[in-house]
Amino acid sequence: MASMLVVEETLKQIQTSDGVIGVIVANFDGIPIKSTLDNFTSVQYCGLVQQLIDKSKIAIKKNDPSDDLMFLRLRTKKHEILIVPEKQYVMIIVHNPTGSRPPL
Amino acid sequence: MASMLVVEETLKQIQTSDGVIGVIVANFDGIPIKSTLDNFTSVQYCGLVQQLIDKSKIAIKKNDPSDDLMFLRLRTKKHEILIVPEKQYVMIIVHNPTGSRPPL
Repeated sequence: MASMLVVEETLKQIQTSDGVIGVIVANFDGIPIKSTLDNFTSVQYCGLVQQLIDKSKIAIKKNDPSDDLMFLRLRTKKHEILIVPEKQYVMIIVHNPTGSRPPL
Repeated sequence: MASMLVVEETLKQIQTSDGVIGVIVANFDGIPIKSTLDNFTSVQYCGLVQQLIDKSKIAIKKNDPSDDLMFLRLRTKKHEILIVPEKQYVMIIVHNPTGSRPPL
């Protein structure tokens, strides 16, 4: 139970950091487990992220079997998407790199 | 002709920056036009990068048609791959984020 509290606290901290628009924790099937965004947007981001992780991991392993993906950062005109793939879950942080927080 | 010189100069400058292992300029079919790495490695990186760019662009546009991909950064255990998609070409920089330059 304690670990769930830690997760909640961590998400709250990230969510209140400057410029953060949303935080999503997804399982490795690309399904959002926890999210500060609406379900539709969360599912969309998870779908994109899962494909990018899968593609990256395959290619990285093909290039060097001992190497592995640690972090992915996607900068678009409007947002920046930080992707942290861990063993059992993926954390996705959508933020506005210029610091302000316009609605998504 | 002048623009080719500028490209050469720019690549040399990037290549000699601390920690840079290789620089590749590819066209939008994922074919390396210029590279400081061997052909096999260049083609492999270009293949990975082209898939990531394609996947990211589709998903970003689906999420917001007015948005677009500007930059992609892939951190693996051993390297960091910076991907800059421009209109006619893609620049890929492979570097060692800790600054030293082990052989690829």
